[in-house]
Amino acid sequence: MLTTYAEIYQRDLFESVIPFWMRHSIDREHGGFFTCLDRDGSIYDTRKYMWLNGRQVWTLCKLYNEAEPRQQWLDAASRAVAFLRKHARDEQGRCYFSLTREGLPAAYQRKPYGAVFLAIGLHEYAKASGDETARAEAVELFHSIRRWIAEPALLGRPALAGAPAMSQLAEIMVVTSMALELAAADPTPGYTAILEDCVAKALMHCDPNREILIENVAPDGRFLTDTPEGRLFCPGHAVEVCWFLLHALRHFSDPAAAAPIRAKVLRILENSLIFGWDEDHDGLFYFMDIQGRPPLQLEANMKLWWPHTEALYALVHAYTTTRDARWLRWLDRVHHYTYRTFPDPEYGEWYGYCDRQGKPTHSLKGNSYKGCFHVPRALWMSIREIQEFEHGDVSAG
Amino acid sequence: MLTTYAEIYQRDLFESVIPFWMRHSIDREHGGFFTCLDRDGSIYDTRKYMWLNGRQVWTLCKLYNEAEPRQQWLDAASRAVAFLRKHARDEQGRCYFSLTREGLPAAYQRKPYGAVFLAIGLHEYAKASGDETARAEAVELFHSIRRWIAEPALLGRPALAGAPAMSQLAEIMVVTSMALELAAADPTPGYTAILEDCVAKALMHCDPNREILIENVAPDGRFLTDTPEGRLFCPGHAVEVCWFLLHALRHFSDPAAAAPIRAKVLRILENSLIFGWDEDHDGLFYFMDIQGRPPLQLEANMKLWWPHTEALYALVHAYTTTRDARWLRWLDRVHHYTYRTFPDPEYGEWYGYCDRQGKPTHSLKGNSYKGCFHVPRALWMSIREIQEFEHGDVSAG
Repeated sequence: MLTTYAEIYQRDLFESVIPFWMRHSIDREHGGFFTCLDRDGSIYDTRKYMWLNGRQVWTLCKLYNEAEPRQQWLDAASRAVAFLRKHARDEQGRCYFSLTREGLPAAYQRKPYGAVFLAIGLHEYAKASGDETARAEAVELFHSIRRWIAEPALLGRPALAGAPAMSQLAEIMVVTSMALELAAADPTPGYTAILEDCVAKALMHCDPNREILIENVAPDGRFLTDTPEGRLFCPGHAVEVCWFLLHALRHFSDPAAAAPIRAKVLRILENSLIFGWDEDHDGLFYFMDIQGRPPLQLEANMKLWWPHTEALYALVHAYTTTRDARWLRWLDRVHHYTYRTFPDPEYGEWYGYCDRQGKPTHSLKGNSYKGCFHVPRALWMSIREIQEFEHGDVSAG
Repeated sequence: MLTTYAEIYQRDLFESVIPFWMRHSIDREHGGFFTCLDRDGSIYDTRKYMWLNGRQVWTLCKLYNEAEPRQQWLDAASRAVAFLRKHARDEQGRCYFSLTREGLPAAYQRKPYGAVFLAIGLHEYAKASGDETARAEAVELFHSIRRWIAEPALLGRPALAGAPAMSQLAEIMVVTSMALELAAADPTPGYTAILEDCVAKALMHCDPNREILIENVAPDGRFLTDTPEGRLFCPGHAVEVCWFLLHALRHFSDPAAAAPIRAKVLRILENSLIFGWDEDHDGLFYFMDIQGRPPLQLEANMKLWWPHTEALYALVHAYTTTRDARWLRWLDRVHHYTYRTFPDPEYGEWYGYCDRQGKPTHSLKGNSYKGCFHVPRALWMSIREIQEFEHGDVSAG
């Protein structure tokens, strides 16, 4: 069964997903990637969104580095890197959220994520191109981002007496993801300590009753369940964080200390899937309130593509590293739901946004948050791990 | 039929809607109104949202001034005004978006709307209480808001080279609504000129092909249809603006000049309803792209309560002032859809958020944007105009 899945993912990735973005997203005139693409790839907004430009550079370089060194992928990434270097950052080095097609700043977000995806894009590009400056830029961004997370005033977020600082799961996740990338290329022990810290901080988000990861807790780990933020559960995030943590645990200096944490993360993964799954209509909810109170997000009960890509890969990873059949049963369930809901065989790529019943609410294939990233990342990482598993070269843990 | 509607609205307003808010929203300890109320009125977030606190002051005072001088309404408004005066504004006089239950600033929005609703609340409160300081505060806010709209940098919005200024329909609407309130209490001709200017600016948003009002145009009236913002249509806004414009036209210094504009606004009202109506599942869409391209808002095809309250009142107003049966046919359609979709006879008040099929996606009766405002405003204004119509004292135009 796993082989069949790998074949499906291989075909989807290289015959549908990547061709869609290579055909429609490249701006050959100004550089950078269009991502607001309708069902057939037609452009409905020419702005360049920084989250997605950095992410697409990462994706193309990742495939160049690991799948096949196709020159057109590296060339597209190179031209985007040139565009981003010229336009993505303001005078203080912070990243814009979007630029006009030509590169003028169009929106600024007061969040660190644009910079995060620029950093991972540059880092993967450095590997593909040999451009060592890109690696140095990524490392510099990594340290700036950690500073911005610690001091959000640097991003222009006002400190308000009635809005105390919170530990945000999304911020821990992006630091983990960047540190994993940097650690793979640079074995200095600094990254190990950072990853150990990320794991500890992420586990502070573990609700002790449900054993799921919730989005926001106090900096000292107290649960803030009298506020909607403090009760917010995003199944997709929880599941994505779980696979990042499983990767991070491999870097622990003390493997004996890692083992019980690994077991805990696997329990969190399963509980997050159970709690986040819609038993009436299938699929993972986008947002939930852990006490069943109304979420403030209007899109809470919609079904989005990315929680499902993250679940697919997390389950492939859990199964290939544990051989426990429970993960295969979950993979089956998520795979079948995902493949009957999101992909568009006619024009390629996936729909991103469906109603609770799984019917697309938007015809688009990309927008300001959906681009060439979650689908190819999950498919490629799943293919690779299934292949390694079948060749017997998967190390447990 | 109109009499039956007035009876339904009367019962709904005074036996369901207002009792719900009077029972559940008043913070007798700290002042101000809770608005994050679940289906049964239980509080799921104790923060005070400034849009909704100003709006609820307005609603209670409006009913006190026009329906019946119930002391409990004025008392509740008074205590909220004291809370807002103490906590709502920052050192520069700008309004916060939300406060903690006790009044500490919790969020700031960089938009003028918190101040708008504080202004209309204070102004209606001045009428109810005789507190002339409140009227002066409202007038001062009105002028500050006009300055903030002209210079968004004063609200902390950065000027970005790739994001040129746009004329926003919502901003024109709130200036119109405030000027209408102030003009009713102060017949100085200054407000007439402002209202004439608002009508002219709103009509710049009229798409010449479809004759509907779109959300954003260039300051010189050019249509920006190569961007999602420039193609954005919000049927609820368009319909709400139409009734504000019909009110504003009554203030025109030259009634002969007003007449053709009035005919045009009525055509815009009908076309906005036709274009915004979901022929498959009934109801008005929340957001649409006028070219049928994908909207960036995930909640675009949801059905919200407030576009329907605005349509109800706009249609009552259009019919009672024109006696044209087309408006009665539309009123029928909107009334039946609205009353089979939103009200909750069991616990009172209305659901606010439904999926495209009209099924509630959220159990809540209030949140950070839904409070004691759109429902009671539309019901009360409809009741009053139907009663005037039936007593024969409606002046056409």
